[in-house]
Amino acid sequence: MAKIKVGVAGYGTIGQRLADGVALQGDMELVGVADLAPTLAIRALKEKGMPYDLYLVEGADKSKFDALNIPVKGSFNDLVSRVDIMLDSSPGGVGAKNKELYEKNGVKAIFQGGEKNSVADVFFHGYANYENGVGKDYLKLTSCNTTGLIRSVDALDRDYGIERVAITIIRRVADPGDYHRGLTNALQIDKAPSHQAVDLMTIMPHVQATGILVHTPVTHGHIITVVATGKKKITKEMALKTFQAHPRIRVVNIDEGFMGNASLFKYARDLGNPRGDMYEIGLWEDSIVETGDDIMYAINIPQESVTIPETVDAIRAAMGLQKTRAEGTAKTNEYLGIGRFK
Amino acid sequence: MAKIKVGVAGYGTIGQRLADGVALQGDMELVGVADLAPTLAIRALKEKGMPYDLYLVEGADKSKFDALNIPVKGSFNDLVSRVDIMLDSSPGGVGAKNKELYEKNGVKAIFQGGEKNSVADVFFHGYANYENGVGKDYLKLTSCNTTGLIRSVDALDRDYGIERVAITIIRRVADPGDYHRGLTNALQIDKAPSHQAVDLMTIMPHVQATGILVHTPVTHGHIITVVATGKKKITKEMALKTFQAHPRIRVVNIDEGFMGNASLFKYARDLGNPRGDMYEIGLWEDSIVETGDDIMYAINIPQESVTIPETVDAIRAAMGLQKTRAEGTAKTNEYLGIGRFK
Amino acid sequence: MAKIKVGVAGYGTIGQRLADGVALQGDMELVGVADLAPTLAIRALKEKGMPYDLYLVEGADKSKFDALNIPVKGSFNDLVSRVDIMLDSSPGGVGAKNKELYEKNGVKAIFQGGEKNSVADVFFHGYANYENGVGKDYLKLTSCNTTGLIRSVDALDRDYGIERVAITIIRRVADPGDYHRGLTNALQIDKAPSHQAVDLMTIMPHVQATGILVHTPVTHGHIITVVATGKKKITKEMALKTFQAHPRIRVVNIDEGFMGNASLFKYARDLGNPRGDMYEIGLWEDSIVETGDDIMYAINIPQESVTIPETVDAIRAAMGLQKTRAEGTAKTNEYLGIGRFK
Amino acid sequence: MAKIKVGVAGYGTIGQRLADGVALQGDMELVGVADLAPTLAIRALKEKGMPYDLYLVEGADKSKFDALNIPVKGSFNDLVSRVDIMLDSSPGGVGAKNKELYEKNGVKAIFQGGEKNSVADVFFHGYANYENGVGKDYLKLTSCNTTGLIRSVDALDRDYGIERVAITIIRRVADPGDYHRGLTNALQIDKAPSHQAVDLMTIMPHVQATGILVHTPVTHGHIITVVATGKKKITKEMALKTFQAHPRIRVVNIDEGFMGNASLFKYARDLGNPRGDMYEIGLWEDSIVETGDDIMYAINIPQESVTIPETVDAIRAAMGLQKTRAEGTAKTNEYLGIGRFK
Repeated sequence: MAKIKVGVAGYGTIGQRLADGVALQGDMELVGVADLAPTLAIRALKEKGMPYDLYLVEGADKSKFDALNIPVKGSFNDLVSRVDIMLDSSPGGVGAKNKELYEKNGVKAIFQGGEKNSVADVFFHGYANYENGVGKDYLKLTSCNTTGLIRSVDALDRDYGIERVAITIIRRVADPGDYHRGLTNALQIDKAPSHQAVDLMTIMPHVQATGILVHTPVTHGHIITVVATGKKKITKEMALKTFQAHPRIRVVNIDEGFMGNASLFKYARDLGNPRGDMYEIGLWEDSIVETGDDIMYAINIPQESVTIPETVDAIRAAMGLQKTRAEGTAKTNEYLGIGRFK
Repeated sequence: MAKIKVGVAGYGTIGQRLADGVALQGDMELVGVADLAPTLAIRALKEKGMPYDLYLVEGADKSKFDALNIPVKGSFNDLVSRVDIMLDSSPGGVGAKNKELYEKNGVKAIFQGGEKNSVADVFFHGYANYENGVGKDYLKLTSCNTTGLIRSVDALDRDYGIERVAITIIRRVADPGDYHRGLTNALQIDKAPSHQAVDLMTIMPHVQATGILVHTPVTHGHIITVVATGKKKITKEMALKTFQAHPRIRVVNIDEGFMGNASLFKYARDLGNPRGDMYEIGLWEDSIVETGDDIMYAINIPQESVTIPETVDAIRAAMGLQKTRAEGTAKTNEYLGIGRFK
Repeated sequence: MAKIKVGVAGYGTIGQRLADGVALQGDMELVGVADLAPTLAIRALKEKGMPYDLYLVEGADKSKFDALNIPVKGSFNDLVSRVDIMLDSSPGGVGAKNKELYEKNGVKAIFQGGEKNSVADVFFHGYANYENGVGKDYLKLTSCNTTGLIRSVDALDRDYGIERVAITIIRRVADPGDYHRGLTNALQIDKAPSHQAVDLMTIMPHVQATGILVHTPVTHGHIITVVATGKKKITKEMALKTFQAHPRIRVVNIDEGFMGNASLFKYARDLGNPRGDMYEIGLWEDSIVETGDDIMYAINIPQESVTIPETVDAIRAAMGLQKTRAEGTAKTNEYLGIGRFK
Repeated sequence: MAKIKVGVAGYGTIGQRLADGVALQGDMELVGVADLAPTLAIRALKEKGMPYDLYLVEGADKSKFDALNIPVKGSFNDLVSRVDIMLDSSPGGVGAKNKELYEKNGVKAIFQGGEKNSVADVFFHGYANYENGVGKDYLKLTSCNTTGLIRSVDALDRDYGIERVAITIIRRVADPGDYHRGLTNALQIDKAPSHQAVDLMTIMPHVQATGILVHTPVTHGHIITVVATGKKKITKEMALKTFQAHPRIRVVNIDEGFMGNASLFKYARDLGNPRGDMYEIGLWEDSIVETGDDIMYAINIPQESVTIPETVDAIRAAMGLQKTRAEGTAKTNEYLGIGRFK
């Protein structure tokens, strides 16, 4: 079978990782990536010897690339005309505009969380509603926090039934290397409920959710606490068993040395993962506590890379490569090396 | 009636503020403060002209104070022999040792949260169990987070009845000026349940509580999210009415400019409060959300000063100045200027 | 003699402190302050009982103030018409526009560092070029870093002669309470030379200066290292003697507990200084080192309050209250309580 | 020729990178690494499939490793007996103790900067004094800041002659993942002169140096500003030419997007460098300024990895693999891929 041809729009924090993730899929071919300016990410691509072909979006000044001897393969139009499906990780709002071109070319697309839900046919999560995405043309991924959160809530829900969750999102405020935003010696609170709770209800309409989000001055890894009310009482043992069985959840302990989000980033670096990325969410066994019939626990969201597996799932669903959640996520996991450590 | 004579052991972050708080009470006299070394706090006391008399604890090297022309009034023994009650804000563990001296002198004492519960007859909170402290000799205050948390939970409980709470404590990791501890670009998680949840159950034994604590790299003001399950449904309007009526809770809004813990510290500085301290906890109206029959909200704990009012309450209870919660807390509030803004 | 009537435009971080500083001057009267919106600073003014009269600048929506029961005394025009001199701490660029109104009313003005030099007749520093400002109509203050830096360089220059300086500015990136800017786990470098070095040469044209500025994620107190080349060799003892004699320089030591900028902020809070402010720069005795014929040392700049004394000096110069640097700065120091601790 | 057999003592932040660096050398064989406990680094080694053999130092509890199915190859004694040279990156002080074992086994050793100079025959830097280390038994590396600093000063010195330098070290306070130390919203100053200035004079005794060090709350990459006085005037063009020619110096610009230490870490991650490490120091072209006859510039020190090349140089010198600085550093650069981007 011919490989699925994939393009990536926007070679930023997410776009770079999408390209790397697609390049690992045995049944996909990364045709190229598109961007606007010779950013650090593009300069690094050049220094690495251009493992991926580069296309320029409208408005790009090619002379700037020429001056740096960065080879350009073609225009954004060229890229779109050569692929079956686009992964759109453009800045928020640009994806909706790009969609016109995708439609014109009869090309499917997966949008990231920054776009409005209306851009897509389906608001998608690989584990929670894979089947909804099968054969669809335009899918939108959940954001990083929502993606990781739903992994854990969906897992509990499938095993035991979940009625409602109340979440507290302790958010990292910038990615490593960000200079365009930041927070210094301050916690910042958003109006409740947080969009992640609202998004969870869109993906899992049978669950009630609310939440409060607090920004904190750190750069790698959100931490979310979840208070979940089951249809029946869920014990710590029951929850732990569910979490340990999930390929995209890494159960860790403080006594092992996993003292917080920085430990998980360090560990991913020490594993030799490219960029120190991790596809799994961390879940602290020591954080799981029961209260009345509720269960409470804390997870870590590696914000730069957590959505990559579910985006690859989305390609599989949209292209009909696998028709079921079990088959689609298993194939993604296999190519990304997820779950090997279990 | 003669004023109650009060001494303070340990002139650190808490001790300084206890001394200031007692000095404002019309029915109390601050006899003096005791410490070990010429710290910055003691040097500031000297530069201010010694508004409080200084006593030296055992082990202090008086020559160091003499070299700086800091007048010393006497020994720790001298201080204890001249007071009716001691406020002990010594480093954790030292208070238990000091207690022997207090007992020998027939002097009552209030210990701060760092000591073990066993040091005291009563684990005390001015609003939640004032009457338990009336006439007792040794009281221990709840810690800063627990003190502020209980203010809000006790208020809801008295108005509507609370069955259980699940809290997430987003903790500041150091006080402004601390160099002996810190955290850099990391969130750190503690084993659950957090001691604050356990302590709440000790003070309010009819409520079930659990919680997860996460340290964050900021210096002023913990933020706690609370998921509270009432005996009956508590709406946002009901909760808001309760919070607004509480003298030691300041209800704020993001739209007013209160974007997080740093806004509250800035506001206290702009108010001209000494040290930029605030006795009230902040509570965000925009954070209050309902979920099923639960209510969720977020509070801000000004960790350096929040326990001062409840410690003064404790003096009132222990000395029998006022016999009831309503009278005791009202008198403290009056002298500290709490609730004037309402 | 009638008191000098002073108004303040812009009641932000600097404007609040200018108002407080002027209110302390026995020979000045603070007529009022002007601002645009009911910020936290204005809300605090209201909660304090309106110690200063409030005027509204053009574009302000009075109904917002009415809704909060904040009394408004009049328009910005009204304020300008009632004063002898304005202190303009409006956002950068607004001062130049305000100047038209000042000129129309025949009112003098002192602008803060955010305005262009061309707005003023003199670029002013109380200690370095006081006499240049005497009788002038429009003065512009140096920025916080430059103000503190020049205190130390001017002092050395007057005692021993300085040929050139090379400075490294380790800058705090935001004020406490700022949410509109910040930096997280990153140092940021600016193009060299830094404007502070250039500004120093404008104020002290006989000195050559260059410098590099690095932003750091902290909120209180820049630290500047200075490598100064004297006309003759300056020893550590010579430099120390000069610094200790300066009323607006506080010589501190690490062994006393002054471990960095946070210690100085803590100390100012413990002193009971309003807002924890300090008018003096800190200078570490332990940092002074000789290298060849050069002398190197480090100073701390309390960015929120350091320019207040020099701004009051500027009023004195512009209004001709005192004709000489010695008299003008001495009077400012007397009313602000500067140098009492020496 | 037989490969040089190398062992690594201490598999922490530095030890891991030393092992990786040695493994890349075509003329060396990494026999194994030794450590005490199943840290995160060891757990990551296990999860990667044990690419390096593990030996246990005295005091290690083998049962803890067995419980985690981590294969252990032997004792520290075993490791030492199987190598030609040890790289000792044990915690400070332990290396001196280990030296007894090395001497007993007739094994050479390279110590890291945490040990006292007296542990070694030569205080070593690959570029500044390579020949001093040739054939020696015990070498000690300069610390990370000193290593990077000397690269730039030695380069200028060889091209133009340097008389003295005054440095300001803006230090990161913890490594990513560190929870045992940190700093929050504070700059911390050390007593001057900094040890890096003193160490530079030990390595380059003909240069006079002093410096001030300030700790900042960030985790990746110190920034050092250098004020260098040449024997003759060094212009910006002269300095730039020298820096651009150095294989271990990467000249960068703010306009390219290199806004600070975080940009360089991001770039190294995007390059796909293991752990996001970089062997080169960054040097900002935009920071180079002339002042009088002095030249000033700023460099970035990637603290986790910067000493690896010079440590490999040290192996080459000690073992006599190459007899000259030019040959030794060139071979190291070749195997580590340093300078390919030039």
